Amino acid sequence: MRKIEHLGIAVRHIEESNTLYTKLLGTAPYKTETVESEGVKTSFFQVGESKIELLEATAEDSPIYKFIQKRGEGIHHIAFDVDDMEAEIKRLTAEGFTVLNEVPKKGADNKRVVFLHPKSTGGVLIELCQDIPTPENSGDTAVQE
Amino acid sequence: MRKIEHLGIAVRHIEESNTLYTKLLGTAPYKTETVESEGVKTSFFQVGESKIELLEATAEDSPIYKFIQKRGEGIHHIAFDVDDMEAEIKRLTAEGFTVLNEVPKKGADNKRVVFLHPKSTGGVLIELCQDIPTPENSGDTAVQE
Repeated sequence: MRKIEHLGIAVRHIEESNTLYTKLLGTAPYKTETVESEGVKTSFFQVGESKIELLEATAEDSPIYKFIQKRGEGIHHIAFDVDDMEAEIKRLTAEGFTVLNEVPKKGADNKRVVFLHPKSTGGVLIELCQDIPTPENSGDTAVQE
Repeated sequence: MRKIEHLGIAVRHIEESNTLYTKLLGTAPYKTETVESEGVKTSFFQVGESKIELLEATAEDSPIYKFIQKRGEGIHHIAFDVDDMEAEIKRLTAEGFTVLNEVPKKGADNKRVVFLHPKSTGGVLIELCQDIPTPENSGDTAVQE
């Protein structure tokens, strides 16, 4: 794990929370993005080498909707940046962690992402993410969606 | 806010969690420390420029004991690194945030720390922390405990 890539925070009203976090962090979101497949609207704030990701549910079957119904607004997951997703999945599975999706899916902010089951991580939802190569950060890693 | 200084995670049994997080992060804790005033045992793992802090309650009046009784193990707080604590307290108070302790207290890992009330931050417990000068990082900032 190279760094904390981002912290995901579940919020009820992303516009209001964007205002709040802009005041808190002293910086505005650098990006907003809707991820239809996950049923979320997101916004991202840069803090040092990491990001704060706010997530608002766009549908009642969204994991964020269920989280807020159960626990209210709050920290939803920690995402770690990895160099080699397949090697990390292999290493963590061998260490006894449960990978929720063995084939990485497309996440927000141009990433391939995998989640670990909170039952195997002491109640904390952990995401692994790896940049998808773009013309700007070109590499030769194959992207699976 | 310069960076995420650390993420605080409440755990029931710090020895077991040290083993789990060592496997997860691929690195052992660089430090363990008991903070009597807060009623916690802590351990710290370095991940990039940030840290993961595990916290186990040592007393039933510890905030960590109460958190675990109410919600179980999980992410307890986000700590941001600040350059100038007094200036940040002044700025955040003017923005409408509630500072729980206006006089910074001594936290783990050689820091002066202040907490913001979760009611003013959308349900997330936020800590601000600033390094206490040591012979290694000498400065002339007064330390209040």
